[in-house]
Amino acid sequence: MRITVLAGGVGAARFLRGLRAAVPDADVTVIGNTGDDFTPFGLPVCPDLDTVMYTLGGGISEEQGWGRAGESHAVLGELAAYGAGPAWFGLGDLDIATHILRARLLAEGLPLSAVTKRLCERWQPGVTLLPMSDDPVRTHVTVQLDTGEQELHFQEWWVRLHAAVPARKIEAVGAAQARPAPGVLEALADADFVLFPPSNPVVSIGVILAVPGIAKAVAAQTVVGVSPIIGGAPVRGMADACLAAIGVQTSAAAVAAHYGPGLLDGWLVDEQDKEAVDAPELAGIEVRSRPLYMTDVAASAEIASAAVDLALELRR
Amino acid sequence: MRITVLAGGVGAARFLRGLRAAVPDADVTVIGNTGDDFTPFGLPVCPDLDTVMYTLGGGISEEQGWGRAGESHAVLGELAAYGAGPAWFGLGDLDIATHILRARLLAEGLPLSAVTKRLCERWQPGVTLLPMSDDPVRTHVTVQLDTGEQELHFQEWWVRLHAAVPARKIEAVGAAQARPAPGVLEALADADFVLFPPSNPVVSIGVILAVPGIAKAVAAQTVVGVSPIIGGAPVRGMADACLAAIGVQTSAAAVAAHYGPGLLDGWLVDEQDKEAVDAPELAGIEVRSRPLYMTDVAASAEIASAAVDLALELRR
Repeated sequence: MRITVLAGGVGAARFLRGLRAAVPDADVTVIGNTGDDFTPFGLPVCPDLDTVMYTLGGGISEEQGWGRAGESHAVLGELAAYGAGPAWFGLGDLDIATHILRARLLAEGLPLSAVTKRLCERWQPGVTLLPMSDDPVRTHVTVQLDTGEQELHFQEWWVRLHAAVPARKIEAVGAAQARPAPGVLEALADADFVLFPPSNPVVSIGVILAVPGIAKAVAAQTVVGVSPIIGGAPVRGMADACLAAIGVQTSAAAVAAHYGPGLLDGWLVDEQDKEAVDAPELAGIEVRSRPLYMTDVAASAEIASAAVDLALELRR
Repeated sequence: MRITVLAGGVGAARFLRGLRAAVPDADVTVIGNTGDDFTPFGLPVCPDLDTVMYTLGGGISEEQGWGRAGESHAVLGELAAYGAGPAWFGLGDLDIATHILRARLLAEGLPLSAVTKRLCERWQPGVTLLPMSDDPVRTHVTVQLDTGEQELHFQEWWVRLHAAVPARKIEAVGAAQARPAPGVLEALADADFVLFPPSNPVVSIGVILAVPGIAKAVAAQTVVGVSPIIGGAPVRGMADACLAAIGVQTSAAAVAAHYGPGLLDGWLVDEQDKEAVDAPELAGIEVRSRPLYMTDVAASAEIASAAVDLALELRR
């Protein structure tokens, strides 16, 4: 069985860990969002790719959901002593090694997809991890500050401002010019079906879909998604702030309607949201309700298993 | 009093700490060797500049003489787990922060001299620290290996091979095309005198002198040096291996003769080497003997004080 998954960070990583447990023999390709990438201290950080890689490779901090277990912060403390910013972005020493190696490999001329492959040789995530594109795409958020309207890098809005300032606009800068990374379109075309894990529909899945060619390749597939919204609130992160920016309600049904039946064939919602099962605005999308909290690997595996079963059932 | 000092690493740093204690009101400019610079893991490391900066700034590991006090090695362990080399070059986490910041500032287009100034804003070394050049100069060592003659970066010979394989040739690659960094020639011209600390005459002082214009500016000055050789052996490091490569004996007198009376006006040797005081080959160089072991800051200050006194006495 070949499965291709579009992935953001923590939610996707936990879902993928469940998917691997549920269908250990499946050939899984993960297309990771790179719109969150940025370069604090000149280090090329790929938060979503790394969260997936560390989680599936057994190196993740379980408490945080991102970053490394057993992390220390000697380098960051020193950079602060130099007065070098950004002071608001926490990078651990173990994590920094990944970015130092990535920086060197990129400087040697390797594309991000080849760099990611090299890093995965160590972590052995058990999936093929691809960046959505080797070309730079940067998610920018336009906010209204006291000093006027300002366009911020996503991380500055998300991490420094905790998404507390309303976003007026969210834009994937560079997406229109980006090409899918090698293997991305093939993985979408060759898969038995495509899954959307419970990732942020705007800044994770939405940004991946903004790379020309990807949305069309996804739409040609059987697609089953898992709602990142439970009971009208994001399970994790601040997806509500992102949905508000694009005028979509924070509800499991509204997110599915946003993707639409042209893209989505099946949609898993939590039991709290079972009214979505018969929602008229979701005509053309097969909606099922079940428990969606990924409390541990076993729970995540059951959710992944339900998504796989629904995809096989709906397969065109 | 204006003093300009040509500097290698540990010996120079300890001498400078003594000099600062001996003449606290002096305006000291340090011209640091950059031939040892290299980029393990893509990080731009300047061993000599950093040893001087950390030592005078109070951050040095006193036991090692180089690197940071209270150092940890999380990043290096991770890079090893990735199989990324060079495995033979130890870089600590605190030290790595310096190189991350240097990499970013260089990438932003700042020349090394401006980057060094920025780093010194934190360390406040109490001297003006200048790289000899903003242009890349790399000391290469040609050795005979079982596999044939090979040209190695200095650090590979020095750190990986412990200089145990005889050097056939030592060359400052790029020196002929390098220009002195801004302020270097001015500091030499404007100084009351120039001091050579007990640094390696070949790969430290010798490489600085290889940058066009510097040797001439030094020769125009009153110059007093402190012998790095005591009793026929280097006090620290493997200067004997470097001297052998250029056909100079490992003795205090031979090093002074190598510099020659055209460059050197005064030369301090250890009491063990007092026969150098009347050595006929050192005609034209005023040689004095005194204890030269820099056992602590007080001892280093007495040596520096003797060098200053001799320079003032010989001042042209």
